[in-house]
Amino acid sequence: MISPLRDILVDGRPGDVFPADDRGLLYGDGVFRTLRVDAGQPRWWDEQVAKLGRDCASLGLVAPEPGVWLTDLQHLALPPCNGILKLLVTRGSGERGYRPPPAARTRRMMVFEAIEFSPDPPTGLTLRVCVLRLGWQPRLAGVKHLNRLENVLARAEWDAPEIDEGLLLDQSGKVISGVMSNLFIWQRNRLLTPRLDRCGVAGLARDRLMQKALAAGIEVQETELDLRAVYEAEEVMLTNSVRGLRRVARLEAQCWPDSVISQRLMDYLNA
Amino acid sequence: MISPLRDILVDGRPGDVFPADDRGLLYGDGVFRTLRVDAGQPRWWDEQVAKLGRDCASLGLVAPEPGVWLTDLQHLALPPCNGILKLLVTRGSGERGYRPPPAARTRRMMVFEAIEFSPDPPTGLTLRVCVLRLGWQPRLAGVKHLNRLENVLARAEWDAPEIDEGLLLDQSGKVISGVMSNLFIWQRNRLLTPRLDRCGVAGLARDRLMQKALAAGIEVQETELDLRAVYEAEEVMLTNSVRGLRRVARLEAQCWPDSVISQRLMDYLNA
Repeated sequence: MISPLRDILVDGRPGDVFPADDRGLLYGDGVFRTLRVDAGQPRWWDEQVAKLGRDCASLGLVAPEPGVWLTDLQHLALPPCNGILKLLVTRGSGERGYRPPPAARTRRMMVFEAIEFSPDPPTGLTLRVCVLRLGWQPRLAGVKHLNRLENVLARAEWDAPEIDEGLLLDQSGKVISGVMSNLFIWQRNRLLTPRLDRCGVAGLARDRLMQKALAAGIEVQETELDLRAVYEAEEVMLTNSVRGLRRVARLEAQCWPDSVISQRLMDYLNA
Repeated sequence: MISPLRDILVDGRPGDVFPADDRGLLYGDGVFRTLRVDAGQPRWWDEQVAKLGRDCASLGLVAPEPGVWLTDLQHLALPPCNGILKLLVTRGSGERGYRPPPAARTRRMMVFEAIEFSPDPPTGLTLRVCVLRLGWQPRLAGVKHLNRLENVLARAEWDAPEIDEGLLLDQSGKVISGVMSNLFIWQRNRLLTPRLDRCGVAGLARDRLMQKALAAGIEVQETELDLRAVYEAEEVMLTNSVRGLRRVARLEAQCWPDSVISQRLMDYLNA
């Protein structure tokens, strides 16, 4: 069942299974992050581990120390190829029931999967608007937790290979993100991205891009965006930790043939 | 890690582990049900298996046939004691990413845990109102899926052993359910229970009680309930599949010393 191209450590030990009473499985009681690996080197390591720690804290999980992850990484001894590294933390095993056991030891997993990344479409991505609307849950907003059924159901909406990503709106019709990426638009010399205080996942590439753009003197705003603002944008872009920043060429019937700012922002993000 | 009092079958085979790439763990991509076992006999078996099938369908999962569960049950050969039987279905393993793999085979688990049920408080349960508000997600409302972080966070709100259950309101302040139970109130000769079309889990005991009460000539309504309606109710009750129907003696400062209808309803439910 596990692909031979995957290497997995569970609590630091090689193995491809998880205890069946783990709260990650039973309740989605945990968090994760996905890192890009280039020639054996995980990208943005320190920032990813730090952000995973903050997400753990938001669920009341004791995060593994950064040094523990580093030991795991050395133990895994990534081959000098490209791929994706996943770090996952759950509340571990415990008594039956929703109540987080006071003595819960977290359980951690590190998975490497070798992947040759497909090239991006040269002109940009093609997007659709998803039917599923994200529900609001301020207590979990921004956190990359293991309750991802909304993303699964949204991604199940399309099969067409020409669609690269789906745009997610919330229950009030505001635009929040892509199914597997964060959204930025460029409008009147400002870089705008949806607020994620009611739903959505705050990706690390999003954090980084906001910081780097600000540092470069660009006006950056987290704000409420409706679909019309996206259609009227001068340029639309998506970010995630694996694919970095990518420009959008098309959203439903609307096209953006020319790059305005995306190349510059891509350089900032990767700097 | 697994208690010696638990018996587990994964896809019909004894074992206490799950593949680490299962989508139940990675995304909470699955459903479950919890059955009470009395002296080795699971309660409401056919109805539970049927309801699990409907929940599978709502996520686009192919449910195991009822006969498959029955074979598992025979294989597990429950000892003649009391306990809890959990049936769990996930979308299994597949390609990386949210997209449900077209070839996904579901994975199933059956777990029995022997438990001596503690007696109910003689006068009734003591409830508090939870701070966490349930978000709306009509696409998942009613389904007992594996994305249960809201329940986990709500249950983490109290430690006091004198509190038996927490009452969950939704984002608009309507009362939805308990953290691990459904809610009924008795008011002017009507049995009322919150609508679960925007959030909440539709437990089997709730379905059954509504049917049985209707059949007994009682007026039953699924409706919007605010907290005031609960405080003003003549009697307040909770249901779940493990504990059946239990009356509430206290919610915050409000008390209901005397039973009005709960004993009769309990008889209907268990008939």
